[in-house]
Amino acid sequence: MTKETYVVDMSRGPNVKLRPVPVGAVRIRGGFWRERMTAGVAGVHTALGKLEKSGALDNFRIAAGRKKGTFRGPCFMDSDVYKWLDAASMTLMTERNPALEAQMNEAIEIIAEAQEKDGYLNTYCQLGAYGPRWRDIRSAHEFYCAGHLFQAAVAHCRATGSESLLNVACRFADYLCETFHEGGTACAPGHPEVEMALVELYRQTGRKRYLALARFLIDCRGTDRSQCKRDLYCQDHLPVREQTHAIGHAVRDMYLRCGMTDVYAEEKDENLMAALRTVWKDMVHRRTYIHGALGSRYAGEAFGDPYELPNLRAYAESCAQIGGTMWSWRMLAIEAEARYADLMETQLYNSILSGVSLDGERYFYQNPLESIRDRERQEWLGCACCPTNLMRTIASVPGYLASTSDEGVFVHLYADAQIDWHLASGKPLELDIATDYPWSGDVEIVLGEHTAGTFGLFLRIPGWCRSAAVTVNGKQIEEASRSGGYLRLVRDWRPGDRVGLSLKMPVEVVQANPRLREAFGCVALKRGPIVYCFEEPDNPGVELPDLRLPLRPEAPGEGFEPAFRADLLGGVTVLEGKGRVPERPDGDRPLYAAFRAEEEAWKPVRVCAIPYYAWANRGPAHMKVWLPWVAVT
Amino acid sequence: MTKETYVVDMSRGPNVKLRPVPVGAVRIRGGFWRERMTAGVAGVHTALGKLEKSGALDNFRIAAGRKKGTFRGPCFMDSDVYKWLDAASMTLMTERNPALEAQMNEAIEIIAEAQEKDGYLNTYCQLGAYGPRWRDIRSAHEFYCAGHLFQAAVAHCRATGSESLLNVACRFADYLCETFHEGGTACAPGHPEVEMALVELYRQTGRKRYLALARFLIDCRGTDRSQCKRDLYCQDHLPVREQTHAIGHAVRDMYLRCGMTDVYAEEKDENLMAALRTVWKDMVHRRTYIHGALGSRYAGEAFGDPYELPNLRAYAESCAQIGGTMWSWRMLAIEAEARYADLMETQLYNSILSGVSLDGERYFYQNPLESIRDRERQEWLGCACCPTNLMRTIASVPGYLASTSDEGVFVHLYADAQIDWHLASGKPLELDIATDYPWSGDVEIVLGEHTAGTFGLFLRIPGWCRSAAVTVNGKQIEEASRSGGYLRLVRDWRPGDRVGLSLKMPVEVVQANPRLREAFGCVALKRGPIVYCFEEPDNPGVELPDLRLPLRPEAPGEGFEPAFRADLLGGVTVLEGKGRVPERPDGDRPLYAAFRAEEEAWKPVRVCAIPYYAWANRGPAHMKVWLPWVAVT
Repeated sequence: MTKETYVVDMSRGPNVKLRPVPVGAVRIRGGFWRERMTAGVAGVHTALGKLEKSGALDNFRIAAGRKKGTFRGPCFMDSDVYKWLDAASMTLMTERNPALEAQMNEAIEIIAEAQEKDGYLNTYCQLGAYGPRWRDIRSAHEFYCAGHLFQAAVAHCRATGSESLLNVACRFADYLCETFHEGGTACAPGHPEVEMALVELYRQTGRKRYLALARFLIDCRGTDRSQCKRDLYCQDHLPVREQTHAIGHAVRDMYLRCGMTDVYAEEKDENLMAALRTVWKDMVHRRTYIHGALGSRYAGEAFGDPYELPNLRAYAESCAQIGGTMWSWRMLAIEAEARYADLMETQLYNSILSGVSLDGERYFYQNPLESIRDRERQEWLGCACCPTNLMRTIASVPGYLASTSDEGVFVHLYADAQIDWHLASGKPLELDIATDYPWSGDVEIVLGEHTAGTFGLFLRIPGWCRSAAVTVNGKQIEEASRSGGYLRLVRDWRPGDRVGLSLKMPVEVVQANPRLREAFGCVALKRGPIVYCFEEPDNPGVELPDLRLPLRPEAPGEGFEPAFRADLLGGVTVLEGKGRVPERPDGDRPLYAAFRAEEEAWKPVRVCAIPYYAWANRGPAHMKVWLPWVAVT
Repeated sequence: MTKETYVVDMSRGPNVKLRPVPVGAVRIRGGFWRERMTAGVAGVHTALGKLEKSGALDNFRIAAGRKKGTFRGPCFMDSDVYKWLDAASMTLMTERNPALEAQMNEAIEIIAEAQEKDGYLNTYCQLGAYGPRWRDIRSAHEFYCAGHLFQAAVAHCRATGSESLLNVACRFADYLCETFHEGGTACAPGHPEVEMALVELYRQTGRKRYLALARFLIDCRGTDRSQCKRDLYCQDHLPVREQTHAIGHAVRDMYLRCGMTDVYAEEKDENLMAALRTVWKDMVHRRTYIHGALGSRYAGEAFGDPYELPNLRAYAESCAQIGGTMWSWRMLAIEAEARYADLMETQLYNSILSGVSLDGERYFYQNPLESIRDRERQEWLGCACCPTNLMRTIASVPGYLASTSDEGVFVHLYADAQIDWHLASGKPLELDIATDYPWSGDVEIVLGEHTAGTFGLFLRIPGWCRSAAVTVNGKQIEEASRSGGYLRLVRDWRPGDRVGLSLKMPVEVVQANPRLREAFGCVALKRGPIVYCFEEPDNPGVELPDLRLPLRPEAPGEGFEPAFRADLLGGVTVLEGKGRVPERPDGDRPLYAAFRAEEEAWKPVRVCAIPYYAWANRGPAHMKVWLPWVAVT
């Protein structure tokens, strides 16, 4: 295995401040992410059977002439196979797995056979389920599937060194270059994805034509050359440099921003970057759920109006927050600002992880903030974009932990891990990171035996943290400087140097902007990066839809105590405290009535909150994140 | 004109307590509804041009062989023409109009020519835009269009005495009877409508086969014979007698309940009626907006979960609350319970009337409870179900004012009107009703010169009214009995007897059930049947999204004073009072933050609320119905 198993290889982009540390250079030894990754690998293994059942692999077999039949599934069905290969490749970056590799090679063989002589590859079109190629660039997902092929091919090559899938990808990419940009045909794909994939294919192969095509497709967007009918849904309403809001279909929006950021990383274009900063701020300040989810509307799977963030009817598609993390990772590399890692952390620990069951085998498409016993994860989905996306995201977590820069090393996310890489100078970089994060805010970093010299160690102080202390070799550092949200420790480091970071992690009671209507008069509980929810199994006898949290306004968090429960949901820290419910259930009252002051007859109840990501692992149940509060003295 | 211009002729249904008073027997002389009806007639006149522009009439011309061309519009386009004829007929019930009748006759002539020899009539199918007849009973709206044809035909015959359209309807209805029920073919139409129309056609013609087909279609629903795939969206998930919730597409749900109620009215079936009562209660207690609107979800134009009633994203389709009023009118006739009239009144004065501009020329499909300058009524709609539905509903208001029973006469809605009809006994009934309702709660009813004898006068005491007083010939009646929400005055009446009803109409501050998330911590203002909103033009300089209402919990309504403004919006009573906005706008604050007690720095502002129905007549503007309140002493 090549060690340069980048998730996104921004290591040479001229406009990039932070260079990635590859997945293969990071060993997550234990703790939180080790368990999630193990479950993820289990999911990758069983997914192949699900792809067979859905017909996704058969579509390729039929196109390859190995089998008779007709196309099955939605128009983007090919991408399920590509994304599975992508996810499987990512898991190989951490650990080789000959059985899995054999399965992958067989799939790649079928895919290669299905490819047309001129490089075109899309079984939906090839099997006649659609019409001529490129008949409907807005809806038919040919570019989208191509993008996922390219990403899978790059990941497969990086993980295994094999070019079997990369050759398929390049043949198709060459065909695309010749047909569109170089061939004089303009368009903007209805579902962005190919743009970032083309840039990555350029990074892997060095072929500039792929980067040029990516830029061309981005430049066509929102112009008369796009064929997307100036449609908001596809972010085609305006040229990309004039766009100011996260808008339309949320996954499309996020994938488009990834492609734009990737193009910027490789070719300076300040108007592009200015638009990206504006959209990112709009998204985070007005259209992001507390658990990091994006895209609140069922209609059009879309970003809503500002502050339109319903709880029960949250769409909050797993793929949207995955797209958000992919985009923020790119922004982080360019700007070295911790706010991007803050969003990634919120998404990874909460609304991404909630997309998959604790055993790694069942998936959520939507990730609402409330349930009325109406939700269960599914083994697979008719529109199966999320499962494989979740798999590849969880497998890529090691690649998100750290970066290097000209000044030293940045640690973004804290996990129990060993990093064995090098600084930009080429000098060895070995970090041993020990932590029980996210259940504890204490992190110890020990420098390896070959790690020495003057460089900066940049430790992210998470946005949620209001008090952090740092020691070097046991000595408190009083005046460590900060840079873009990172604590900056520059010194002449010696092997065995120990850095202790202590992030104070009290229970936080959070309130939303009053304009966020469904959280008005409510609070949510957080501790560290973890967003909590109240779920029925932990609160027997409590009518959750009616639950209020009594708070002392001067000390709102004091009523809740964290407790680690090794036996619960794979081991989680719960929050235990007091609640109250009305003597007369809300459901027995009229829908509308003359105003009167607050209900006075309350029943006190004991309540217990669990991490949001772990909900819905015990059957359908009531669940709530935001709860009304009542003042007590 | 025949005087028996019933909107729905339940005058002979064996299971009906209340018999309708026809539109032609009620003259709305002046006041609120006179103005709304005048605007409605203006809309009927200009609609013909809009139907020409949309291609709806041309579709018939092409099917009739008068013109060449292809089908235009959605599959249910024919219904636009039928509903226009229905609405136009309803206006003729109040006032003949030769120019309009000539236009109608021309349309009817084209329709008749377009009809196939065997009675089938649906230009979408006839013009080849679809495939063979009945290929897709779930989606293609053939039955739906047939239903609107039948309703238009009955209304046209009642209004004019002409059977020209009735003959077309009966030919098609006979074909349907022969093809489906009698022909042994089972189905349930995807969009209910034909069921109630068939019952009405039976009532008009006396042909029992139409009633039998209606019952058959209702009985097929939710069974394996339905072809609707057991789909919630079409209320096909369960047999109708087992259904307990308002569910799925809201207009379909309401139209289905109308058909069920009509069948019950004619043929006793207590299981049917029990299901209807259960669904109605579920709807009113958990799924109805404060302004009476129904169906909160954009996705599927559907009823939401219990208490799922968002403000900005309210779907609240005009046709859904029209369907709700149509259904409640039927339930009222059967049960003589004022709660049904309460819902009708709420809908008519608020979320139905809001569907049309004050000049009668522009229409809303959705009727949200909040706007961020993103809404304007449209001259016509691509899916133009609402405009003609609004026209026919407003034109039918005179028919909803009163009913007779074996005991006497019921007055449901108060308007400045003369009623000239007869009691069930056949004795003359002349009532002269003078009122400035809904701006005043004072009503005077004077008995006409031929009205005498012992009978009951039942006056509805609206659900909103907490204090009512009644006089007869100036003398206070202390102990008038109540029956189903009606004040019951039985005596030996004499011509010229004067009954005075005084409904106390203070400003009411309303709060919602705490489970209604988007109204949590908020109040809305009502006065009488009118729901108020705050709109930007009446509140210059006030940032409406941030507005709070300061209330004294012991006397919440005292801060708002009603004032009639003849110059405003056609003459409305506004509510004037105090509000406050935060010194620092909510929009400048973060999306999420650590909890702290309520903002203390407020700016006091003067605010003015207008009737909800009158909003959006002055261009796009901020608008809100529910506002957060803050306690003051």
